[in-house]
Amino acid sequence: MSETMASAGGPITMTSIGVVRRAFDNPDSVVGREATIEELRAERVAIVVEARYADGLLGLEPGADILVLCHLDRADRDLLQVHPRGDTNRPMRGVFATRSPARPNPISVTSARLLDIEGATLSVIGLDVLDGTPVLDIKSHSQYFDEPYTEG
Amino acid sequence: MSETMASAGGPITMTSIGVVRRAFDNPDSVVGREATIEELRAERVAIVVEARYADGLLGLEPGADILVLCHLDRADRDLLQVHPRGDTNRPMRGVFATRSPARPNPISVTSARLLDIEGATLSVIGLDVLDGTPVLDIKSHSQYFDEPYTEG
Repeated sequence: MSETMASAGGPITMTSIGVVRRAFDNPDSVVGREATIEELRAERVAIVVEARYADGLLGLEPGADILVLCHLDRADRDLLQVHPRGDTNRPMRGVFATRSPARPNPISVTSARLLDIEGATLSVIGLDVLDGTPVLDIKSHSQYFDEPYTEG
Repeated sequence: MSETMASAGGPITMTSIGVVRRAFDNPDSVVGREATIEELRAERVAIVVEARYADGLLGLEPGADILVLCHLDRADRDLLQVHPRGDTNRPMRGVFATRSPARPNPISVTSARLLDIEGATLSVIGLDVLDGTPVLDIKSHSQYFDEPYTEG
């Protein structure tokens, strides 16, 4: 393979390990109205993990800081440049220089806090994704991997 | 759809936007020998972005803190529990409570620093992935999304 070739290509298949549920026990949920990212994150949501992946939750305890990766299934995958936060006063930027949901592989990464766990259902605060969004992965938060890289 | 149903299922298709190249100009590269995560991260690597995604790089400047998401194409996707860092003295944990590469959707998230950019090739430090690993996404690092979530 030539070094100038960027990639061997070919589709990469992922699968949902669960889904985000808002408003499952909250009559004041943001579901059904416009909400800011801050409001979305402040709402307690459920991550309902599929039973076949429940063994992967061993050791997750209430209070844990986690990263949640979701498939933003309503995002535009063809857009390569955006006005950050949709603000047309800000110059266009490439999606790889932003946190826009629009990007070729619309995978969100959001830090969240695990509040409770019952069976394979996690109660979580800090997530900014919409009701029904598929979850791809959950990871423990790590200062080493998640904070800006510093040499030496 | 019932609320007890975790997900609508169905495969989710991602595509490589580029590839990580080690040792492209470095005779002392870790490629070809055992290396610790710390050694992998300390090595300057190239991310060769495919030409058709180059417009997505607008606004990325040397010195930027970024998150790089990769498809860990050599990871075990069937393993749900591991000894953290392969240390058998440590009790088994679910992969979702770790940063193990093994997980149903082996997507790595690593904070890195952009050192230089030439065309669609990024020179980066901080990445822990192997030579040839497909890249899924690049995001700007964000204190708001990447540090532990705090209420209020």
